[in-house]
Amino acid sequence: MALTKKPVTGMKDILPQEMQIRDYLIGLIKETYKSFGFTPIETPVVENLPNLTSKQGGDNEKLIFKIMKRGEKFNLQTATCEEDLADSGLRYDLTVPLVRYYSNHVNELPKPFKALQIGPVFRADRPQKGRFRQFYQCDIDILGEAGNLAEIELILATTTLLGKIGFEGFTVHINDRRILKAMAAYSGFPEDSYDKVFIILDKMDKIGMDGVAAELVESGFAQESVDKYLSLFEALKTQEDGISYLGEALKDVMEPGAAENLSEIVNSVRTTSTTPFNLKFDPTLVRGMSYYTGTIFEIEIAGLGCSAGGGGRYDEMVGKFTNMKTPACGFSIGFERIITILMDQGFQVPGAANKKAYLLEKNMPTDRMCEIMKEAQAEREQGTPVLIAVMAKNKKFQKEQLTAEGYTEFKEFYVKPLGE
Amino acid sequence: MALTKKPVTGMKDILPQEMQIRDYLIGLIKETYKSFGFTPIETPVVENLPNLTSKQGGDNEKLIFKIMKRGEKFNLQTATCEEDLADSGLRYDLTVPLVRYYSNHVNELPKPFKALQIGPVFRADRPQKGRFRQFYQCDIDILGEAGNLAEIELILATTTLLGKIGFEGFTVHINDRRILKAMAAYSGFPEDSYDKVFIILDKMDKIGMDGVAAELVESGFAQESVDKYLSLFEALKTQEDGISYLGEALKDVMEPGAAENLSEIVNSVRTTSTTPFNLKFDPTLVRGMSYYTGTIFEIEIAGLGCSAGGGGRYDEMVGKFTNMKTPACGFSIGFERIITILMDQGFQVPGAANKKAYLLEKNMPTDRMCEIMKEAQAEREQGTPVLIAVMAKNKKFQKEQLTAEGYTEFKEFYVKPLGE
Repeated sequence: MALTKKPVTGMKDILPQEMQIRDYLIGLIKETYKSFGFTPIETPVVENLPNLTSKQGGDNEKLIFKIMKRGEKFNLQTATCEEDLADSGLRYDLTVPLVRYYSNHVNELPKPFKALQIGPVFRADRPQKGRFRQFYQCDIDILGEAGNLAEIELILATTTLLGKIGFEGFTVHINDRRILKAMAAYSGFPEDSYDKVFIILDKMDKIGMDGVAAELVESGFAQESVDKYLSLFEALKTQEDGISYLGEALKDVMEPGAAENLSEIVNSVRTTSTTPFNLKFDPTLVRGMSYYTGTIFEIEIAGLGCSAGGGGRYDEMVGKFTNMKTPACGFSIGFERIITILMDQGFQVPGAANKKAYLLEKNMPTDRMCEIMKEAQAEREQGTPVLIAVMAKNKKFQKEQLTAEGYTEFKEFYVKPLGE
Repeated sequence: MALTKKPVTGMKDILPQEMQIRDYLIGLIKETYKSFGFTPIETPVVENLPNLTSKQGGDNEKLIFKIMKRGEKFNLQTATCEEDLADSGLRYDLTVPLVRYYSNHVNELPKPFKALQIGPVFRADRPQKGRFRQFYQCDIDILGEAGNLAEIELILATTTLLGKIGFEGFTVHINDRRILKAMAAYSGFPEDSYDKVFIILDKMDKIGMDGVAAELVESGFAQESVDKYLSLFEALKTQEDGISYLGEALKDVMEPGAAENLSEIVNSVRTTSTTPFNLKFDPTLVRGMSYYTGTIFEIEIAGLGCSAGGGGRYDEMVGKFTNMKTPACGFSIGFERIITILMDQGFQVPGAANKKAYLLEKNMPTDRMCEIMKEAQAEREQGTPVLIAVMAKNKKFQKEQLTAEGYTEFKEFYVKPLGE
């Protein structure tokens, strides 16, 4: 019986050309982030189910690939629901496993701990163009650093990386959940519906301010609150320094120090960055995950029309594992999105050229083949990749395919050398 | 509620020190294998269940982590067995996914196709020391090359890599399934019980020749066959060139050309290799997987007492997917075993030293912090990794931990610089 050639629904095989770019990007990421003192770590792709369903993952928790119990533990007779049959699942992000990892090894790790993770995550999303059910995430996180040194370093490291990849004219949007909350409080929205307000606010870039206002009213919020909320955004348009303006205007409802803190981050990054980019206070920036507690950020690459990464501070999450409060802040770049951009641009990996292919006529005698292989070994030791392959019947097509693979030089060997 | 800190049963978190060695090894593997013309590829860790249970995987098929169907497809009411509830599983090796990948993309790939895969595989084995349920495999395979150029290149590439890692005095054992079969045929074992014979033969290094003989007789094989079989192994002990001897002695029962072919591989590798190692014809080498059709090999590192990798030719497997016969040959190194050896040896990653840590006294004013960060940025651009961290209360302990992480130089910054 012929077997299934396609990958499982929604997942993809990585072809050599894309793989070359992925390997290059991973190398650049590791080199850059390591220079900022981040340490690579790895966690299993399989995670305890209770950790994955602890409400840290928001909607992602609905998209878990669950793994069945095995042996005696799998009992179909007594099972009344899915949960009776599964004991683990594939991780949907790298944050939950990181927090578990840190909690498990806290005594073996330096403080603060600066972690770098690159690896596959899994979401049983509806399959759609350009989105896959297995995809890579690339996160840096600083655990155990309460001060805004964490935010500054995360932004510097990430933007240095983006610059090295070759991106120009990108913007890091920045906000603070405490400012978001203060704006909602000032406007009179009830505290238990802030998340609902923010979900609507998050649509600002798509439906505009009027759209947001209309939807807030439709959702049953008081017209007065909506008007007051909008007037804040209106007022901000004319402010040179929006953060200070809000710090003053909302001082009665904002957590003390929140605005000053954000100002300090913005000023420090602007002063120290050696990569050109815009750092922009964006009071409409929400970030979906409810675990954020302070600063939040998101990268926008000009002309892309969507986010290329983001992150923020999540000071409460480690405590859920350890019952010991530990400050934490992270930044994730959109690895797959960046790969897609580079592929679309026809990105050429630097230094990937200069590969040689030796093509051997069929039935080459052993002693000649050994001579040829020795020649190849010598070239390899000098640093030139050498492929040895038997000449195909259609040599022209073979060379075309090898050229597409990056082979630039061909050497042909015949059983009877020319001239003999 | 506190969550689970431990990884799922049988899987492990990779701590920074080990991760550093893993990253180094992966880099060395990619560099070396690429110089031999191997192309990195990647397949999803999730595979179609029918592909995983097609009898290609031997006993590994009993160890599959199965993934539950989702949504409407998951129906507990109508399910009568495990299979009704699962639609995919975690791959237990890289060979099945490679063959599926090649079959799926054969028209986009060069011929022969030389693939390099490094990635996690999963087996729900009984947890035991040093064996994990998620572990890395590292395979090179040549698809579409029928000649022994494939075997020669695989052995050269693998041994070059082992030499670069720093191993000395290792042995590649080599045999051919066709020679194995001819020895069994010559001895008069019934053809349908060859696999049973080989499973017993495989224990030679543990129970010796007498043990093998005894077990064969116990298993019901004719004493005459067992005696004849043993006499062959006895005769080989005094032979300088065992392959030629068997080629002559078994010529009536051996596939024509099998012995000559193996001789050619052995001689060519000996002539062309630039890495010192022993290449040894081993008529007791079996290799467990039944999919092997020709040459088989296995690496033994002196003093290790177990295999550090192996592989062979499997010319029938691609045809099971495509119905089009495609020759294939591969070599897998024992990635995790090599990591364990390096860790036990206290292996130091070359060039990993020279990391600096800046320790900042608490409450550093923003402008001073910016100056310090600028200094760090300049050092990073010169290639020195610089960690910036707030000074801990227990500075001595902090430095000890950072030293363990590979930091060799410390620079301390105080709010009031000395002398002010």
